[in-house]
Amino acid sequence: MSATRLQGIFTPNLVPYTASGDINEPELRRYVDWLIDRGVHGLYPNGSTGEFTRFTPEERRRITTIIADQTRGRVPILAGAAEANVRETIKACEYYAELGVRAVAIVAPFYYKLSPASVYAYFHEIGRNTPIDVTLYNIPLFASPIDVPTVQRLSEECERIVAIKDSSGEIPHMIRMIQAVRPNRPEFAFLTGWDAALMPMLLVGCDGGTNASSGVVPELTRKLYDLTLAGDLDEARRLQYDLVTLFDTMIYQAEFPEGFRTAVRLRGFEMGRGRQPLSQQQQSDLSALSNTLQCLLSAHGFTDQPIAGCPVETLQTAAGSIGSPSDDVAQITRAVVAELKQRGLM
Amino acid sequence: MSATRLQGIFTPNLVPYTASGDINEPELRRYVDWLIDRGVHGLYPNGSTGEFTRFTPEERRRITTIIADQTRGRVPILAGAAEANVRETIKACEYYAELGVRAVAIVAPFYYKLSPASVYAYFHEIGRNTPIDVTLYNIPLFASPIDVPTVQRLSEECERIVAIKDSSGEIPHMIRMIQAVRPNRPEFAFLTGWDAALMPMLLVGCDGGTNASSGVVPELTRKLYDLTLAGDLDEARRLQYDLVTLFDTMIYQAEFPEGFRTAVRLRGFEMGRGRQPLSQQQQSDLSALSNTLQCLLSAHGFTDQPIAGCPVETLQTAAGSIGSPSDDVAQITRAVVAELKQRGLM
Amino acid sequence: MSATRLQGIFTPNLVPYTASGDINEPELRRYVDWLIDRGVHGLYPNGSTGEFTRFTPEERRRITTIIADQTRGRVPILAGAAEANVRETIKACEYYAELGVRAVAIVAPFYYKLSPASVYAYFHEIGRNTPIDVTLYNIPLFASPIDVPTVQRLSEECERIVAIKDSSGEIPHMIRMIQAVRPNRPEFAFLTGWDAALMPMLLVGCDGGTNASSGVVPELTRKLYDLTLAGDLDEARRLQYDLVTLFDTMIYQAEFPEGFRTAVRLRGFEMGRGRQPLSQQQQSDLSALSNTLQCLLSAHGFTDQPIAGCPVETLQTAAGSIGSPSDDVAQITRAVVAELKQRGLM
Amino acid sequence: MSATRLQGIFTPNLVPYTASGDINEPELRRYVDWLIDRGVHGLYPNGSTGEFTRFTPEERRRITTIIADQTRGRVPILAGAAEANVRETIKACEYYAELGVRAVAIVAPFYYKLSPASVYAYFHEIGRNTPIDVTLYNIPLFASPIDVPTVQRLSEECERIVAIKDSSGEIPHMIRMIQAVRPNRPEFAFLTGWDAALMPMLLVGCDGGTNASSGVVPELTRKLYDLTLAGDLDEARRLQYDLVTLFDTMIYQAEFPEGFRTAVRLRGFEMGRGRQPLSQQQQSDLSALSNTLQCLLSAHGFTDQPIAGCPVETLQTAAGSIGSPSDDVAQITRAVVAELKQRGLM
Repeated sequence: MSATRLQGIFTPNLVPYTASGDINEPELRRYVDWLIDRGVHGLYPNGSTGEFTRFTPEERRRITTIIADQTRGRVPILAGAAEANVRETIKACEYYAELGVRAVAIVAPFYYKLSPASVYAYFHEIGRNTPIDVTLYNIPLFASPIDVPTVQRLSEECERIVAIKDSSGEIPHMIRMIQAVRPNRPEFAFLTGWDAALMPMLLVGCDGGTNASSGVVPELTRKLYDLTLAGDLDEARRLQYDLVTLFDTMIYQAEFPEGFRTAVRLRGFEMGRGRQPLSQQQQSDLSALSNTLQCLLSAHGFTDQPIAGCPVETLQTAAGSIGSPSDDVAQITRAVVAELKQRGLM
Repeated sequence: MSATRLQGIFTPNLVPYTASGDINEPELRRYVDWLIDRGVHGLYPNGSTGEFTRFTPEERRRITTIIADQTRGRVPILAGAAEANVRETIKACEYYAELGVRAVAIVAPFYYKLSPASVYAYFHEIGRNTPIDVTLYNIPLFASPIDVPTVQRLSEECERIVAIKDSSGEIPHMIRMIQAVRPNRPEFAFLTGWDAALMPMLLVGCDGGTNASSGVVPELTRKLYDLTLAGDLDEARRLQYDLVTLFDTMIYQAEFPEGFRTAVRLRGFEMGRGRQPLSQQQQSDLSALSNTLQCLLSAHGFTDQPIAGCPVETLQTAAGSIGSPSDDVAQITRAVVAELKQRGLM
Repeated sequence: MSATRLQGIFTPNLVPYTASGDINEPELRRYVDWLIDRGVHGLYPNGSTGEFTRFTPEERRRITTIIADQTRGRVPILAGAAEANVRETIKACEYYAELGVRAVAIVAPFYYKLSPASVYAYFHEIGRNTPIDVTLYNIPLFASPIDVPTVQRLSEECERIVAIKDSSGEIPHMIRMIQAVRPNRPEFAFLTGWDAALMPMLLVGCDGGTNASSGVVPELTRKLYDLTLAGDLDEARRLQYDLVTLFDTMIYQAEFPEGFRTAVRLRGFEMGRGRQPLSQQQQSDLSALSNTLQCLLSAHGFTDQPIAGCPVETLQTAAGSIGSPSDDVAQITRAVVAELKQRGLM
Repeated sequence: MSATRLQGIFTPNLVPYTASGDINEPELRRYVDWLIDRGVHGLYPNGSTGEFTRFTPEERRRITTIIADQTRGRVPILAGAAEANVRETIKACEYYAELGVRAVAIVAPFYYKLSPASVYAYFHEIGRNTPIDVTLYNIPLFASPIDVPTVQRLSEECERIVAIKDSSGEIPHMIRMIQAVRPNRPEFAFLTGWDAALMPMLLVGCDGGTNASSGVVPELTRKLYDLTLAGDLDEARRLQYDLVTLFDTMIYQAEFPEGFRTAVRLRGFEMGRGRQPLSQQQQSDLSALSNTLQCLLSAHGFTDQPIAGCPVETLQTAAGSIGSPSDDVAQITRAVVAELKQRGLM
């Protein structure tokens, strides 16, 4: 098997839509080139940011095929391969193996909340039958959690399971996994999916990240990664703080991943309209959010300021801006929801 | 549109598998006849009990086609129609409309946890484009919750939305929905998916239930429904208590819906092996559970006792049996999980 | 020990404050008389509604002493006796025993979230040393949960533990407890603290309730109890629906128990200012809420309408009123919080 | 006011009991000296580790008085001052001010789950009336959460509020608070109460910690603090990993804070029996845990090995040890609970 540990920033890329709601292949190809040019270490189609559940099985294959074709080996690809059941998922693994991607990523079963024993059995059957390296994908907010003993046992029993992507954002959990797995599987990789903790995650031993913000500001995410590894912590911390502000704004102020889609639009891509319908209020909120994001991006030189200009404190935290006199109902509601999410209540 | 309110017990039927893991069509047909013969008012393919997420889109269509064909109009069918996105879901609605089913049931979007505004927008777009009556399906344990204002608004704006199936099991929530909707939409139906509260739900105003236990003991569930509507509350209460014991045993002592599949096997059907893999420990736990269930079923005359016989207190609550000297690791673990679920912590 | 099962409606009474924030003894005495005159079966000082945590140990004793003195045996008293630890709690039990109250109610330990084993050990030590009958008080929203096996075991080992007050509002949980305990302890009482489910709780076997709304509209709560026991279910259901509206308004539209305090003020009592400070926004929200409550109370003839009159749909659900054009920030925020609470997310 | 920012490790000290369950003053004095000798920067009586809720108001004052007297100014003291209500809490602030402690720490109201507006109003009234510096104490697991906008607003309106102790353990939350507060209040201090993330918390900008493990292994916690500030990250990381193992073992394998009390006993102190009763099973589990802890402590040279010796992999993670052949019921149950807690499900 492969002895090279996965590392660096893998971008969980969004999928642009055409006017009729289909995959916008030319724009997707252009986006792939743009990301690679800006330094991301790898691509990660069919992740949560890529709205994998909103595509048909055929569309998921097509997205990865387009990306693999466009990438032409410049960077490794981690392809989301979760399908309706083990048999379908293994078929997808076989398909992606033939495409030549580096590995697949498989989220734990969702909808039903499975016990650790079932999560183990699920990945064990896949791990024993996959022709391609597998990354476990733990995102307890959306899917059945993959606990530490399960990761340890799978790492010991299935050499094809080579990494875990963890989106819990919890530092002690990451430490526990590394402690449990690394002694026996030194090449096993640990990737964090929680952008707001990327720097400290790397400092406690993570190998990289699959960070949605790297699809928006690949330059920043890459720089944060490089500064952290180089030990330039003061500069890294400043960048991490900025990334928290940007990430919070994109993730909490609109239905995920619309905030990210809005920001990528500001970087110059036609993203089309998302597949999840939005109410009129949500659409007008999204316009307001676009201005906020444009100000955040312009502060880093990625865009011009919006025509109406930007407030002075553009880069202060999203949370910090709550309570300003201009607050309206939609903002307050978003703030409440954001706080609840932050506290794990939603 | 149809002026008849949905009512009665709709069975969210399981799907038997062949040895190779495919849909066992002959056994499914036999099961449909058996359920209808035992008095269920309707059938409900592609529900949570029916493991709809573990089938491909084509298989979901085939399941409903088989059931519609076998039913031949003897009872109404409520077909689960949720697909990957609005467009695919509407296509499924059109397909099921041509099959002649009574209505479809559509679960709120899952995986992503959507806000009420997004849930509204999703159902509104479906409600405006469906050629067939739609039942909203609220199951906050697994999918984005559908809150009361959303149900009210959809009921006012979409006449094709004619019912809600609510699996929260929360009585005050049901009352709030009925209060908010019934004045404007007297024919709108309220169905509960939580067997452990069927009798009180009917007493506060529900029109019926989509209860997994009716796929196991259709005679009991139907009788509980009839007794409650007839006002024979003492007898109904006794039956409801028994149903809680049976339901708890099936739902908390194995990974859902394996407990139900095990019980249906005891009623004489070849269910095959489920699509979600089980660990060896889980499989042996399931054998033990089968004995427990056989005792519960034999107490009602639905099966013989197992060869080894049954304990005297067979019908005591599952929870009550915790703490017996013979407890082993698996039982304790199940008990902890069951309690946590019961307290809403899982 | 006492062979009489606790039953009926025990009012968890609020405590009126003086201008300086002390216990308003004359008003408390007047309130006690008023409640007894309106038919409540018992009183319950030092409950959650009575803000027991906001008083000093000495004040808690004084409140019960006043109420016992004023009641003079007309109705039984259930005195909240939880103190900082087992020793202090037992001392309180001894004190209340000498006052001649019928029983004490003891909430499970809070702040720390204890395991079932610790909850058992805590109540077991109290149950073995109390000179007075004890009611367990399960309120998982605020304190460590008391699970079914724990209730069963305590009921079997401690004859001084004679009842449970359960504020979870969960019907199946209540059924499981009754199934587990009643066979061995037929005189053990089950009281529900969740007003929004009082009627169905009584119908599945509860003996009564400790319902905060009975401190506001004792006439209604009592009538609902009587109608339900008499089997007049259509009338009971109508009353239960009204009670849900009133209860929701009081519990979700202000910081608990300010909504109840506001309503009792409308019934003619000087409640003073609560001990938990409120922001200016909260105070003005409370004024608006007072108008809403006055309309709800006037619809039952308990008060005049407010001077500005009442909207036609006064009795529609609180949830149902969300979305009206006059919504302002505070209302939206409350609505979000209310919905989250209703869904168990807070 | 004081211009010196709080920083370093403040030990939330345990309280030793006598055989009769009272405060063991001589042992407490000896423990204080021992902690100071081993380098903790400050002491923190009446915190969660110090079981403040299990003492009477008089006992809480006495604990701080003893500690202040014994410390004699060698290190600053942060005294937990939360009492039943604002008035009582301010009285406690006044009392502690006269004792000459450096500041008080006040947990957000608990039992009732308060809204951000109420939490704000509570601390605002205290902040306006306290004669001594106040540290906010956010521990969302046990008490009403203090959200970022509330911290920001209080920091701007109350100069006597000088710090926050946050036990959420969430890195992004800490970053958001620092971003919101530090620009306007550069001397405001941020302390983390979550030992398992101490190093990364310090690296993202925290000023120190109030860490329960510093009451057990003050040498280690202090060394981790020093190494991190000195930028010796490889060594710091190794120590942080060890601390996670020790912390997890103490916090998840027994009812909090019994694991810590057991470990302090191994360091040579008579801790007496805790005030929260334990079942027999819990007591025997605690004996087993004592052996595990002794092995962990002996690996650092803090104790001898237990007579029976230690397994080779003593320092592997607690989670990692799950699944060993010797697992018994108690271990499994603890493991399930630990995992659930770790995932935020409990």
